[in-house]
Amino acid sequence: MTIAVEAPIAFETGGGTIRFPADRPLRLDSGAQLAPLEIGYQTYGALNADKSNAVLVCHALTGDQYAASPHPTTGKPGWWHRVIGPGLPLDPARYFIIASNVIGGCMGSTGPSSIDPKTGEAYGLSFPMITIADMVRAQAMLVEALGVDKLFAVVGGSMGGMQVLRWAADYPERLVNAICIAAAPRHSAQNIAFHEVGRQAIMADPDWRGGDYLRHGVRPEKGLAVARMAAHITYLSEAALQRKFGRELQRDGLSWGFDADFQVETYLRHQGASFVDRFDANSYLYITRALDYFDLAASFGGVLAEAFRRARHVRFCVLSFSSDWLYSTAESRDVVRALNAAGCRTSFVEIETDKGHDAFFLDEPQFDSALRGFLDSAAHAQGLA
Amino acid sequence: MTIAVEAPIAFETGGGTIRFPADRPLRLDSGAQLAPLEIGYQTYGALNADKSNAVLVCHALTGDQYAASPHPTTGKPGWWHRVIGPGLPLDPARYFIIASNVIGGCMGSTGPSSIDPKTGEAYGLSFPMITIADMVRAQAMLVEALGVDKLFAVVGGSMGGMQVLRWAADYPERLVNAICIAAAPRHSAQNIAFHEVGRQAIMADPDWRGGDYLRHGVRPEKGLAVARMAAHITYLSEAALQRKFGRELQRDGLSWGFDADFQVETYLRHQGASFVDRFDANSYLYITRALDYFDLAASFGGVLAEAFRRARHVRFCVLSFSSDWLYSTAESRDVVRALNAAGCRTSFVEIETDKGHDAFFLDEPQFDSALRGFLDSAAHAQGLA
Repeated sequence: MTIAVEAPIAFETGGGTIRFPADRPLRLDSGAQLAPLEIGYQTYGALNADKSNAVLVCHALTGDQYAASPHPTTGKPGWWHRVIGPGLPLDPARYFIIASNVIGGCMGSTGPSSIDPKTGEAYGLSFPMITIADMVRAQAMLVEALGVDKLFAVVGGSMGGMQVLRWAADYPERLVNAICIAAAPRHSAQNIAFHEVGRQAIMADPDWRGGDYLRHGVRPEKGLAVARMAAHITYLSEAALQRKFGRELQRDGLSWGFDADFQVETYLRHQGASFVDRFDANSYLYITRALDYFDLAASFGGVLAEAFRRARHVRFCVLSFSSDWLYSTAESRDVVRALNAAGCRTSFVEIETDKGHDAFFLDEPQFDSALRGFLDSAAHAQGLA
Repeated sequence: MTIAVEAPIAFETGGGTIRFPADRPLRLDSGAQLAPLEIGYQTYGALNADKSNAVLVCHALTGDQYAASPHPTTGKPGWWHRVIGPGLPLDPARYFIIASNVIGGCMGSTGPSSIDPKTGEAYGLSFPMITIADMVRAQAMLVEALGVDKLFAVVGGSMGGMQVLRWAADYPERLVNAICIAAAPRHSAQNIAFHEVGRQAIMADPDWRGGDYLRHGVRPEKGLAVARMAAHITYLSEAALQRKFGRELQRDGLSWGFDADFQVETYLRHQGASFVDRFDANSYLYITRALDYFDLAASFGGVLAEAFRRARHVRFCVLSFSSDWLYSTAESRDVVRALNAAGCRTSFVEIETDKGHDAFFLDEPQFDSALRGFLDSAAHAQGLA
């Protein structure tokens, strides 16, 4: 038997950490400033001569800049390796793809585990509260520093989709296309409730130490794992869980105890245990809070359409998944209605799938073809090779 | 302004704890035996001369025998005070209503916090694993001890509904009517997943002490509160959460911190904090496990209808709630299909409501009238005054 070894990914990659000096602080919605500011990022492909092929990819709650390259901690393929790559919808031969770690994150961008220059210790809970708009403001600084005045597209799923909406509201003049996947214009009560469970699980862990765990050389791993397990259920659909696991047992027969009897328990425990290796608990607190605070219309007098008034020249693509109960199709429809009311050109597709919210990471041919169709047509309109 | 004060509930109540001696053990599905066995129970109303008016009420995961009398710890009205009482569907003037605490519970029935006669200490994790069928077997012993050969009805919601199904399968000869509300014939992968999150939250709390917390004079309150918060979300619907709380803030403006900013957070924290005052963490582990193990068809060669073959004389009522996503209408339909296939007389009503799974505890006129209609007609058929 021959084991097929995939050829190494053959496209130009770059990236690292960009540091903005103390005299270029990031102004935050809370009124605080962040300086110095570091942003961890990766790029795939090359910027073309007329700088018209840049695509900004925005990540979800626990994502990072390693969208199409192996994760430095886990070694796993990038989280969007199904979308970014040769022959894929976002082909580095055509586009200059930029992915950055959000501020508040833990993969190179300034966040609660970064060193506070004032104290020489990790920020911990003295890190300022951040918002989706703050994340986007930092991305705008990065994109500008990379020499890109205008993005061919900004694209993202889940929290990434909320960043896309915020880009359209705050920097429409820098956008040609905007692709918002499996997102919502605001966090619902149920969304907030699930995040609050996760935060309470982390803060209940004595190793959290009031947020000061790094200084004590410990980490609230059990609390963070529980938070991840609860959240992970919301990323899948009931049908997908049933199809994948049903009531299948881990061994022959029941254990008559509290071991993982059912495969779904083992799977969930694994999701929790592997998450803590790659994610910082305080980052989880801050980023979930940024999501809970997200309510795009609230920044525009309560009228969502007003958020898009300056984006009439932007071509929008809104994609949702029929079995997504975290950010349901109804919420994407709210976005589409507002885009229509604002007079924006909008494509909207609800993808029929039982894979739930996380479908945009998964092998989902309908999603692939909808995304590819929009991008190819947009590239053609723009005259991109 | 006059404040109306409700008259005290005017019906006969009784109850206490019944103790079965060591020579009358409860045989458990696991193969273990429980002895001595204690069952905490309450009764409302009186048994009539021909012993034809007894109704067994089965409680849900965190319920107890105080269905229509104030909870001894919290002082709150019984959990089914909207259903049991003068002029209500289960009127103690007509019925002799029995409610017992399930085994594994913490309100007087033998459970993990009971003293193990072998050691003189609380059982903790040496308590044997229990099932829904075991709970029902204990109830059958209680009912018999109370001098009732045949129940006019067995009724319950959620886990109580699963007990109703198990009664119909295991003791059909002792039933006239069976009312199964907001239940399912088996626990789904998603149901198991949510329970596993709760169990992991409890077991992650260092005060759980490997289940031995009572001996150490501590309790895993934080873990249990997180478990309750996660579960509580599944008891409501997204629409109900949105209607009740939306994004309403606790104070004017955001705190820009991790205090409870949103009312839904305060509500959820309160649900967690108040739960730990009245519930034992190990009981939560054991009872959630019993639910996860529940798969009625599995005891009957995988064919659900076989469970009801001996129950053709029983009149069934199956009620579900349209917005219940814990045990959805589809799962009640599975029960109804099996009842039909077995040739049982079955009424089925899906109640239109946005109140979610917990609707059977709440002010829901459609539910009230469906339950009343079935009971009144059954009482008439039976010649009950």
